[in-house]
Amino acid sequence: MRRPARRPRSTNCCGIDRRVRNDTPDPVPLAQALIRCRSVTPADDGAMAVLEAVLAPLGFACHRLRFGEVENLFAVRGESGPHLMFAGHTDVVPPGDAGWTADPFGGEVRDGLLYGRGATDMKGGVAAWITALQDVLARRPDLPGTLSLLITGDEEGPAIDGTTKVLDWLVEQSKIPDCCVVGEPTSKVVLGDTIKVGRRGSLNATLTVHGTQGHSAYPQRADNPVHRLVRVLASLTAEPLDQGSEFFEPTTLQVTSFDVGNAATNVIPAMAVARLNIRFNDLHTEASLTAHLRAALEGEAPRHGLAISCSGESFLTQPGPFVAALQGAVRAETGQEPKLDTGGGTSDARFIARYCPVAELGAVGATMHQADESTPVAELRALARLYARVIEEIVG
Amino acid sequence: MRRPARRPRSTNCCGIDRRVRNDTPDPVPLAQALIRCRSVTPADDGAMAVLEAVLAPLGFACHRLRFGEVENLFAVRGESGPHLMFAGHTDVVPPGDAGWTADPFGGEVRDGLLYGRGATDMKGGVAAWITALQDVLARRPDLPGTLSLLITGDEEGPAIDGTTKVLDWLVEQSKIPDCCVVGEPTSKVVLGDTIKVGRRGSLNATLTVHGTQGHSAYPQRADNPVHRLVRVLASLTAEPLDQGSEFFEPTTLQVTSFDVGNAATNVIPAMAVARLNIRFNDLHTEASLTAHLRAALEGEAPRHGLAISCSGESFLTQPGPFVAALQGAVRAETGQEPKLDTGGGTSDARFIARYCPVAELGAVGATMHQADESTPVAELRALARLYARVIEEIVG
Repeated sequence: MRRPARRPRSTNCCGIDRRVRNDTPDPVPLAQALIRCRSVTPADDGAMAVLEAVLAPLGFACHRLRFGEVENLFAVRGESGPHLMFAGHTDVVPPGDAGWTADPFGGEVRDGLLYGRGATDMKGGVAAWITALQDVLARRPDLPGTLSLLITGDEEGPAIDGTTKVLDWLVEQSKIPDCCVVGEPTSKVVLGDTIKVGRRGSLNATLTVHGTQGHSAYPQRADNPVHRLVRVLASLTAEPLDQGSEFFEPTTLQVTSFDVGNAATNVIPAMAVARLNIRFNDLHTEASLTAHLRAALEGEAPRHGLAISCSGESFLTQPGPFVAALQGAVRAETGQEPKLDTGGGTSDARFIARYCPVAELGAVGATMHQADESTPVAELRALARLYARVIEEIVG
Repeated sequence: MRRPARRPRSTNCCGIDRRVRNDTPDPVPLAQALIRCRSVTPADDGAMAVLEAVLAPLGFACHRLRFGEVENLFAVRGESGPHLMFAGHTDVVPPGDAGWTADPFGGEVRDGLLYGRGATDMKGGVAAWITALQDVLARRPDLPGTLSLLITGDEEGPAIDGTTKVLDWLVEQSKIPDCCVVGEPTSKVVLGDTIKVGRRGSLNATLTVHGTQGHSAYPQRADNPVHRLVRVLASLTAEPLDQGSEFFEPTTLQVTSFDVGNAATNVIPAMAVARLNIRFNDLHTEASLTAHLRAALEGEAPRHGLAISCSGESFLTQPGPFVAALQGAVRAETGQEPKLDTGGGTSDARFIARYCPVAELGAVGATMHQADESTPVAELRALARLYARVIEEIVG
């Protein structure tokens, strides 16, 4: 039973009666088949084979790409433009030890909810997209353009042998798409309320300041690195790095540790170390932030070390035809006015953004990574209909 | 052989020919007897008995005061004013394992140097004072006033069962002196170049700042205690606490440690701790500094802890008749213009300063606490003559 809040408007902006589409294929059986594969990263346990079995009959050429321990799949149908890619993953985080009332790998449907690890993140999303493809291609077997899927088994893990390596392969094959939808569960409360059009970058830095050890009673003979590092950090945290940008919250800088480990009260130590994490928007890059940290150190602590580890640059898909098509599909299918958002952590979208416009649109993520991860069956079916509309808006 | 630089001027300011005093008793045998006692704190090993054996024949009433493991001696001669006390210690720091060319407990004289642990700090000084008493009392058996010695075996140790407890006993006995000379090795380069008339205080503080743990990506949901503590310390170290006072260097504040111990880059920690040491002059007290630290914490970190440990308030013996008498004796005996100084660490003078004017005047301390601790025999003899003049200036 569909809840009134999620019932699509009976006609779209073009006046087409959309109630005739209530007979679209059901994503639940495919989602259950995927949930029943125990594909905790990097295990595949047959998940890619399940996908191939569904995609090949639809005319997709399936390329299994194994890198290291990881199974990946690139499936593609068509040669002409535009090329719309769907990116997703079949690997899941471990179920954890406690709190489940259902088998995490059982695919049980109970009281209108589909239970299982990956139900929302994101076997449900993968199943919904493929169901949408079945729907669209059944109705329009001569659909123009190119449709593809990049499915990895290494999104929840180190993300080394997954999406990035498949993208390298796509470059070699000249198969880079024109745009990409990532099926992460981006909705916050109601399906379609949020489209992620970017993500902040994340950078970790270790700042080491060297001084000269000495006796606390004679500081003029020593050089206290703690005082220097305090000044560096006071300067770095005194003002926000920015006030945010059109689609991004302000950049944040958090000092996560400061360590000296000097037990002697009468000794000025020789060295002090701090660690910090920066979540940055599109006004910064790894290079610009490194220069900013270096300048703060140079000013107060000539003898220093700086180690940087950037797990991802920020990215933003600017509003344009691609994002407008997604927004239109959401409006038409759900009645929601989707918010363009860039919050939260990271996803494989950060890798794809290097090559083409990418946006993330998927289910409500409330239970992801939790015990009793689940998704309402009605929502999964609505997601399949939404994806079908996306495909038709962009390729059709 | 006496070095020319240390030869006393042949007459003092009163025109008395002082060369007749070349036949004063020699402090070296008593210093050797003391060095041969292995009196590493809190051991006495007969040192107090050596002193009693010399002092009793001079008419001193000897009170052995044992507190805990520590032997102390209060010896007093006379009833009338003024009452001049000498304070010293017979305990020594351990000899250490290496670097000695002489037996640390042998009392060897070689090439004009007396070797041994305590030769300068301060068995030599104790022997010089007692030799001065022998000299003065031999010449002036009816010397007026009261002379006393407070000798402890707990100056180099925790200083709990030594001078402080003897002072408590002196209060009970109504024997608090009018002024006190402490025989610490205060001279820097040449005997008499420095009189210590005060010492800085020393205070250790542990500052704990509490925040609210959270995810680095969502600092708005957390409260970073590292940032707060950085601001507290930046404020405390931004400006000197003072510019010094007439006899004191500026107060110093050194942050000796800052510890968080958070290994997770994506976690804002719940707590941060810093430790600092303040060496303070007579413009501050434990109470005023505690209030200063508390105010800095209140301003930036409402949820905090502050633990204070003050090992000694600062003290200063203001220039006056007592200090002038010491300066006059030094000038007359050594030709030096003594500098009034308040530098360096702590000594038991900080306890005595609560009761009467106190100053420290003694040998050149260059080798104290080192291997091959030693003092020139000529310097030790000159110190005995200087002390004799001090006694006569003040009591005579």
